[in-house]
Amino acid sequence: MISVSEAIQHIENYCKPNKTVQKSIQKVRNRILAEDVISPINMPPFKQSSMDGYAFRYSDTSVYTIVGEVQAGSATNFQLKEGEAVRIFTGARVPNDADTVVIQEHTSTDGKELTIEKLPKMYSNVRPLGEQIEIGAIALKKGILLNEAAIGFLAGLGITEVLVYKKPSVSILVTGNELKQVGEPLEEGQVYDSNSITLELALRQLGIKKVTIDKVEDTLKATKKAVQKHLKKSDIVLISGGISVGDYDFVKESLEANGVSEVFYKVNQKPGKPLWFGHKDQQIVFALPGNPASSLSCFYVYVLPILKAKLGHTNYHLPRIQAKASDSIKNIHGKTLFLKGSVIEGEATQLRGQASSMLKSFAVSNALLVVPEEVNTIEKGTEITCVKLS
Amino acid sequence: MISVSEAIQHIENYCKPNKTVQKSIQKVRNRILAEDVISPINMPPFKQSSMDGYAFRYSDTSVYTIVGEVQAGSATNFQLKEGEAVRIFTGARVPNDADTVVIQEHTSTDGKELTIEKLPKMYSNVRPLGEQIEIGAIALKKGILLNEAAIGFLAGLGITEVLVYKKPSVSILVTGNELKQVGEPLEEGQVYDSNSITLELALRQLGIKKVTIDKVEDTLKATKKAVQKHLKKSDIVLISGGISVGDYDFVKESLEANGVSEVFYKVNQKPGKPLWFGHKDQQIVFALPGNPASSLSCFYVYVLPILKAKLGHTNYHLPRIQAKASDSIKNIHGKTLFLKGSVIEGEATQLRGQASSMLKSFAVSNALLVVPEEVNTIEKGTEITCVKLS
Repeated sequence: MISVSEAIQHIENYCKPNKTVQKSIQKVRNRILAEDVISPINMPPFKQSSMDGYAFRYSDTSVYTIVGEVQAGSATNFQLKEGEAVRIFTGARVPNDADTVVIQEHTSTDGKELTIEKLPKMYSNVRPLGEQIEIGAIALKKGILLNEAAIGFLAGLGITEVLVYKKPSVSILVTGNELKQVGEPLEEGQVYDSNSITLELALRQLGIKKVTIDKVEDTLKATKKAVQKHLKKSDIVLISGGISVGDYDFVKESLEANGVSEVFYKVNQKPGKPLWFGHKDQQIVFALPGNPASSLSCFYVYVLPILKAKLGHTNYHLPRIQAKASDSIKNIHGKTLFLKGSVIEGEATQLRGQASSMLKSFAVSNALLVVPEEVNTIEKGTEITCVKLS
Repeated sequence: MISVSEAIQHIENYCKPNKTVQKSIQKVRNRILAEDVISPINMPPFKQSSMDGYAFRYSDTSVYTIVGEVQAGSATNFQLKEGEAVRIFTGARVPNDADTVVIQEHTSTDGKELTIEKLPKMYSNVRPLGEQIEIGAIALKKGILLNEAAIGFLAGLGITEVLVYKKPSVSILVTGNELKQVGEPLEEGQVYDSNSITLELALRQLGIKKVTIDKVEDTLKATKKAVQKHLKKSDIVLISGGISVGDYDFVKESLEANGVSEVFYKVNQKPGKPLWFGHKDQQIVFALPGNPASSLSCFYVYVLPILKAKLGHTNYHLPRIQAKASDSIKNIHGKTLFLKGSVIEGEATQLRGQASSMLKSFAVSNALLVVPEEVNTIEKGTEITCVKLS
């Protein structure tokens, strides 16, 4: 059995980005950019008016002759003589001969005669070519999170595709003959499977949609076969249950038989002690405890960092914050505790219902309160580390 | 022209939840529960072993006869006489006659003879029927965010569908003859449309997928027709551009002609002054400024709260935090400023490139720094309100 910090160190050795792939900008929201993107154009691509008004060559004169109009989108380039101006609109191309735009609220007109009533500063309301970015400059740096603004910015530069990190495919194998799928009637001795949907939704939250769920019969033969099949199918295999000491737990043996190397088995933590982690070449395998709360807790602390790293995140752990314990917390187990908790305005409270089987408290918690194995008591009002869940 | 706080007050009058709809639990991730959910079963549904070991009726005796085995999922109920025990596994049904489970690590066996080497406390390792939740009790309360744990908990109770708030459908009308769609070649005087993808992705981030994008020609006739069409199609219509004072801005007239009542037009803010907000019965219409950064800024401050409220959120505004200004910030405009900024460890920094047209700074910002209209200077080191973006 290893400590939580040893287990996390092992995990971090496998926190490496996936291969990259070219994707349409429509498909890359919330993904990490895997290249520096160079701007293929000047932005704006021409000297552009930022207001509705009149473009002219700056001088002290206040009266001009309007010789034409430039609508937004028009390619027209008026040649302006001294004392001439053009009507212009927001986003339109400012004629080469003009350098300043006066907003229409500061003018009056009489037929073709324009009077500037409040002279703006020279160059006002004109965006120089390449003001936002010049052709050949770095538009966005490798490693940035592609949110709507970043993608909109790329679209504005005419960029249609970018390089991102490939999403891993994941298999979820559910063991446990006592498990019924939701929608089926429950017989004596049976319970509903909640782990597969919980894990699937946690994966979807990370943008991972290639998820295969397989219910595996509790026999050595079936388990071996399922492991073999899903190692062929997915980058990451998550096995739910079947990893404790019972006679009917065949997972460990099936993994060994399929050449999956154990990195660690059993972590000195509560919940989630019988966690198994291994790999076969580049493929990652986790055997997660079957108890729903243990399974999800292990997912957040150990599985999620590997997934986020594969997606290109360098901050791949869930954020940890310090909060003040609203009450004292005992640790009689000598294990690291991950307690379903609620952090509100810097105060951390342990929720009722900490048993490994209970998802109810998880449903309303926004943090896991971490009590290290060597700490017997967190005193009320002292600081406690909290893993932020939302 | 109204102030930002007046505009937000108006917006809040329209922050009401949508109608409700019954949805499969597979489809409700990140949505708000619109009903109290009552548990249809006891959880666990039977007296359940939480460990692999042996079930027995508690006594001081340390030697028992093993009379059978209960696998997880089995309905078998052994009748135990004094001095008898059964082999049992995690998740399995504990016989009615037993009350305690000893873990197998604390026993030894010789054929049918079981010796308990370390006697547990009475009732150890047995989860009573209904321990997590009893039949008829409230499983989850109306208003909770349905994350993976909450949905997993519902699945564990055998619940397949819940009531949530209907997602609004949204139309995005893009005006501006100067705009080309990404992928097309750019001609002189033209720029690429970035608003439609930016808004579409911001909507998808909220889970809103019924989004229709329509490019509208800059004529009064086309604009009127488009407004009419999309008022029939969508709950919310977002119009990008065409709302300033230029001769070619037909949006305001088209909205009036279609019976959309103005709630406000023009807000004393930078960017985003020419924001228009109105409604036709229950339908909401925003005319957003055409400049990309103005458009997105208005989306976050005014559009997003209405959308989140429709989805059932009661905290519908983006979170606001206080941070220390890393440098002094001048406000020479007498307007409320929303500055693209970066908040790191409680320190707020204004980013370069604040022009209304510039998405680049938005792409790397994680907050909008808010300078109220009545404040001329935020001194370095003093507190500034920041709207958190991520």
